[in-house]
Amino acid sequence: MARNIMSCETVALDDERGALLIIDQTKLPGRVEVLSISEREEIHRAISSLQVRGAPAIGVAAAFGAYLTARAIQSDDYGSFYEKFKESCDYLASSRPTAVNLFWALNRMERVVSGSECLPVGEIKVLLRDEAIRIRDEDAEVCRAIGEYGLSLVRDGDGIMTHCNAGQLATAKYGTALAPIHLGRERGFGFRVYACETRPLLQGARLTALELMDDGVDTTLICDNMVSSVMKRGWVQSVLVGCDRVAANGDACNKIGTSGLAIMAYHYGIPFYVCAPTSTVDMDARDGGDIRIEERPPEEVTELWYAERMAPPGVKVYNPAFDVTERDLITAIVTEHGIVRPPYSKGLAEILE
Amino acid sequence: MARNIMSCETVALDDERGALLIIDQTKLPGRVEVLSISEREEIHRAISSLQVRGAPAIGVAAAFGAYLTARAIQSDDYGSFYEKFKESCDYLASSRPTAVNLFWALNRMERVVSGSECLPVGEIKVLLRDEAIRIRDEDAEVCRAIGEYGLSLVRDGDGIMTHCNAGQLATAKYGTALAPIHLGRERGFGFRVYACETRPLLQGARLTALELMDDGVDTTLICDNMVSSVMKRGWVQSVLVGCDRVAANGDACNKIGTSGLAIMAYHYGIPFYVCAPTSTVDMDARDGGDIRIEERPPEEVTELWYAERMAPPGVKVYNPAFDVTERDLITAIVTEHGIVRPPYSKGLAEILE
Repeated sequence: MARNIMSCETVALDDERGALLIIDQTKLPGRVEVLSISEREEIHRAISSLQVRGAPAIGVAAAFGAYLTARAIQSDDYGSFYEKFKESCDYLASSRPTAVNLFWALNRMERVVSGSECLPVGEIKVLLRDEAIRIRDEDAEVCRAIGEYGLSLVRDGDGIMTHCNAGQLATAKYGTALAPIHLGRERGFGFRVYACETRPLLQGARLTALELMDDGVDTTLICDNMVSSVMKRGWVQSVLVGCDRVAANGDACNKIGTSGLAIMAYHYGIPFYVCAPTSTVDMDARDGGDIRIEERPPEEVTELWYAERMAPPGVKVYNPAFDVTERDLITAIVTEHGIVRPPYSKGLAEILE
Repeated sequence: MARNIMSCETVALDDERGALLIIDQTKLPGRVEVLSISEREEIHRAISSLQVRGAPAIGVAAAFGAYLTARAIQSDDYGSFYEKFKESCDYLASSRPTAVNLFWALNRMERVVSGSECLPVGEIKVLLRDEAIRIRDEDAEVCRAIGEYGLSLVRDGDGIMTHCNAGQLATAKYGTALAPIHLGRERGFGFRVYACETRPLLQGARLTALELMDDGVDTTLICDNMVSSVMKRGWVQSVLVGCDRVAANGDACNKIGTSGLAIMAYHYGIPFYVCAPTSTVDMDARDGGDIRIEERPPEEVTELWYAERMAPPGVKVYNPAFDVTERDLITAIVTEHGIVRPPYSKGLAEILE
């Protein structure tokens, strides 16, 4: 029997060995394998290949990664250290283009260095470690707060639909969209959760179903195209999804399929909640049109993992990793500082003050 | 290189050997394998396991199957022959519950026997063969007519989205939803087709992409959850889908995911056309609520073909094979007798007169 995934840390620092420890999520649900990596190329690959994924977890992994690469820089000269550190951060930032937490976390790390010109490099490295740990710890607190606010929006016995994995496996702890479910579970709430499998990489089937079952939650797996049927049957009282980036106007960018889910929820009159740490809010993006959508390789669609090819050779494929849900379809955005309701331009600006 | 699928017959009768020939669609797109089967258990299994699928093709296969089982009945006594024939038809009818063409075709076959009490059994068998061939030939004509009407609804250069496979592989020829595309191709139209992969069994990826590429059509494969993104980009001018059963009020039952597609098309203001031979219209079903939806095994969702398990053991799965699209979301129903527009109760009744 595999380890209970809820008792594992999604991303951790092994400071003694100078390594980042991550659960290799491409191996789930079959095997719980913890990778120990330290080279920046390995960390870049772990993020780009989705061994670690989920906007908040990517931020934490990048912060630890920035610290580890800083630690390895062999220079006591501030100018030379900063230059090499900046170059490493830029490299790590290129691992995925959409999740804003990646850039947010790396910016926080860089500010530690830029504000420490008068300190010896050795001390700066200690500050970087502390900042990375702080980013991780804050993420767990943020998720817990989102869980509390989210829990106020649902009722015991509710059917809750979710997409992709915005759970503990996507964060330092609890998750964002799954935080209300985990917290509710601690308090004896009985939710029925419908997990959309989330093609092409099946994070819903592989990760969310595993995480929720390990927490003892009543979980039903569906294919993404079964959403309308399940909603029509009256089984769903609310939809909770995570978020990779929220624009200043409230448009929310999340895993591909989210916007369709929102359209269907709207059609059936089901509230649609986006659970998003304020670190995912990007006030520089005026609306969803300003968010660059990552396109991933066609093989994710045409060749299922370990399987025979499922589409004719040479077929054209469109494989966007994310989509934008327009603010008009979002009932509320749940942050660690409270629940933001329309008009979002005003609400988001206020909560970020 | 595999044979061009457009040059193969989806369902054929080998009367000399007393066998039904079908392309085994579970082996596509990898291999074009033609099965030769004659026992009623094999025919039942070919339908229930989706080796032959698509409402019209199921009807044709069932008609040939009914003839072949009749041919094998060793009795010259009408009463005994009819009883055994009826029993075989009931058995074949139990292979799939949703596609009404199955029952429609078997009813046609049974009427041949019930109306021939005065004929020798040997002659009835000849009439049954003729009726089955007629059902097959009529299907090709019906599809061609649907193609002509459908073609009047689209323009050269249009982006067309389709779901599952309502193509030649689902019919005797041309298909229903794909008939306008194949006919347009014959006339030099350049469509851009977006094929939804159609989980869990990937008929869009495996069959539609193959069939359209073999016909030289510009085809892009997407996952089912990418529909909203593609529509939002303005790439789709109309949606064409097939149909397994149309209720008297115009509600249309088709492959799971169709109703979600219709909701999204409605949201983006894209016309949504259901291509349905009148043999799929079931005037005994008042609305979609009267249509029994087949639920299929969870393993279709949790274990991809030939692949490792993609979801945790023991996870609950909801796996409906079809859903109902409410008539309010349907722009028009395209039949072989013309295009039916709302109000459907009136239009469908008129066209069936």
